[in-house]
Amino acid sequence: MTHRLVVLGATGLVGRTMLELIEARGFPTARPRLLASDRSAGRTMPWAGSRLPVEPVDEASFAGATVALFAGGNDVSRRWAPVARAAGAVVIDNSSAFRYDDDVPLVVPEINGDLLAARPTLIANPNCSTIAIVMALAPLLRGRRLTRIWTSTYQSVSGAGSSAVERLEEGLRATLAGKPAARGDGPPFADNVVPHIDRFEDNGYTREEMKIVWESRKILGVPDLAVSATAVRVPVRVGHSASVTAWFDPPLGPDEARREWATFPGLRVVDDPAESRYPMPMDAAGLDDVLVGRARVDLADPDALTFFVASDNLRKGAALNAVQIAEQWAARASGQPSVAP
Amino acid sequence: MTHRLVVLGATGLVGRTMLELIEARGFPTARPRLLASDRSAGRTMPWAGSRLPVEPVDEASFAGATVALFAGGNDVSRRWAPVARAAGAVVIDNSSAFRYDDDVPLVVPEINGDLLAARPTLIANPNCSTIAIVMALAPLLRGRRLTRIWTSTYQSVSGAGSSAVERLEEGLRATLAGKPAARGDGPPFADNVVPHIDRFEDNGYTREEMKIVWESRKILGVPDLAVSATAVRVPVRVGHSASVTAWFDPPLGPDEARREWATFPGLRVVDDPAESRYPMPMDAAGLDDVLVGRARVDLADPDALTFFVASDNLRKGAALNAVQIAEQWAARASGQPSVAP
Repeated sequence: MTHRLVVLGATGLVGRTMLELIEARGFPTARPRLLASDRSAGRTMPWAGSRLPVEPVDEASFAGATVALFAGGNDVSRRWAPVARAAGAVVIDNSSAFRYDDDVPLVVPEINGDLLAARPTLIANPNCSTIAIVMALAPLLRGRRLTRIWTSTYQSVSGAGSSAVERLEEGLRATLAGKPAARGDGPPFADNVVPHIDRFEDNGYTREEMKIVWESRKILGVPDLAVSATAVRVPVRVGHSASVTAWFDPPLGPDEARREWATFPGLRVVDDPAESRYPMPMDAAGLDDVLVGRARVDLADPDALTFFVASDNLRKGAALNAVQIAEQWAARASGQPSVAP
Repeated sequence: MTHRLVVLGATGLVGRTMLELIEARGFPTARPRLLASDRSAGRTMPWAGSRLPVEPVDEASFAGATVALFAGGNDVSRRWAPVARAAGAVVIDNSSAFRYDDDVPLVVPEINGDLLAARPTLIANPNCSTIAIVMALAPLLRGRRLTRIWTSTYQSVSGAGSSAVERLEEGLRATLAGKPAARGDGPPFADNVVPHIDRFEDNGYTREEMKIVWESRKILGVPDLAVSATAVRVPVRVGHSASVTAWFDPPLGPDEARREWATFPGLRVVDDPAESRYPMPMDAAGLDDVLVGRARVDLADPDALTFFVASDNLRKGAALNAVQIAEQWAARASGQPSVAP
């Protein structure tokens, strides 16, 4: 079956990566329809050796579509998801607009792809840092309860969009010339570390931190999981990292963790300190796999496991995970009960 | 009393900052003697409107010295500390060579400056990240026991010395030109995050992480303190940050923490999320104070306090703390029992 695919928000960093992956992975579609806000409409995007026009989104945009990948913001998703669903498309939404709705599955295919069996017509794609963290936690859940995690993230600037990356690069040029980096909507990214992503909630945590809390619980199916997160932007273009400490009952050690990780699809163990091998964003950028390593018995609590993850926030953290959902959804539509992620 | 001051390792980032601070803060010395390895000897360094020669260190270098600031590596300190002490100088050592010796005080003047009353002739200056973390913990100890801390650091490249900063800048230029940053002794700093500082120990922790463990216990006087650290290099020139979760018995909340911090010398509370005010290395660089903020009740354990610190790793994290030790030592030598840090 060939799908009529629509990508909404096709000109952003995530939308562009979706389009690249759809082509490179051979998702069964002839010619995707690219949609964007009025501002970006009229541009063209590369596809299969030629270029596709980017059209402004309107009420008729989703006519005949079977799969719609949404890579815009929350407002765009809230406005257009009902229209796309009414037109008969399944919506796979990268925004956080629907992630916390009880009737919307929040899917990482390797972890809870079986939720697609119910043929939902709206599927939420999780937060970029959360995906990397749960990918490392999920394989450790077999025969164990996960009770608590602490994490501090090292998030790249591409997570804030292409204009943020431009601002980082302008700032880097300025600091190399001995000048300070200019402020934008927030503090400079260049030569700085910013413990503030998304808006602050009343409890002193940012919404980005709360996404890690809420989404880890939902994806892993552990509603009472205790989670504390500090989400921090670092001056890196692509690749989110996180330092994680996790408690399992019964506890497990680093050797056992590495064994479980080694056989889990989508994970790559990079853990050989003697050879200076550990997860880093420069190695994760451009890869599909989430890198995990530096596994060790926690020094402050020998029942805890501490480790480090790095992944490409535009790929597994966003576009790849969405395309994988589309692939599994499409395979199930063709009567193939499951595909390798 | 005017001191005969010697700075060993005067041409490095920390040595240079020591010299600037000695002049700017008016430490009572006429003309410091600058020493360095043979490689750097022969250069001159700015001092009081003119320049001072940098001499190669030898057995006679410390004759007549009263205070010696050491800003070289462990080997340099082990070689020359006995010579300087034998010549009658007090040695204030920024290396980690003597920090873990029971008979060597490890001093942050605001916290345990009273150890100088015993007139030690060798004083160790703590690790750069540790200083910022203990500065935030110490004011909270009044009437409470500190039982456990978790920390993940965001350490700037200047902590690895001036050649590392040059390598970062070369890497930034390369990535801005669309080329990959080159490897040096280790992975590139530019456009990357490196969870590896100093060498790995057998327990899977790096020595940098173990310094935070050992030195927090020693400086705070809590030998059974449970500490777990993940030390990470980020592509920032100056300013180390850390995400910290700490347990006190009895517990304390963020409001109480902010009240204690507000009156502690050397700390500055920067904690107004609604106004996007929180500690960042770009604001800490060039400041004497350690910045502390983002204080909140820990979400995973309401008995814990989570916060974020940022400080200038060359100043309070190294040179400033050493010069403050010299100042308090000198004030005590002149019969002034204490000075404001």
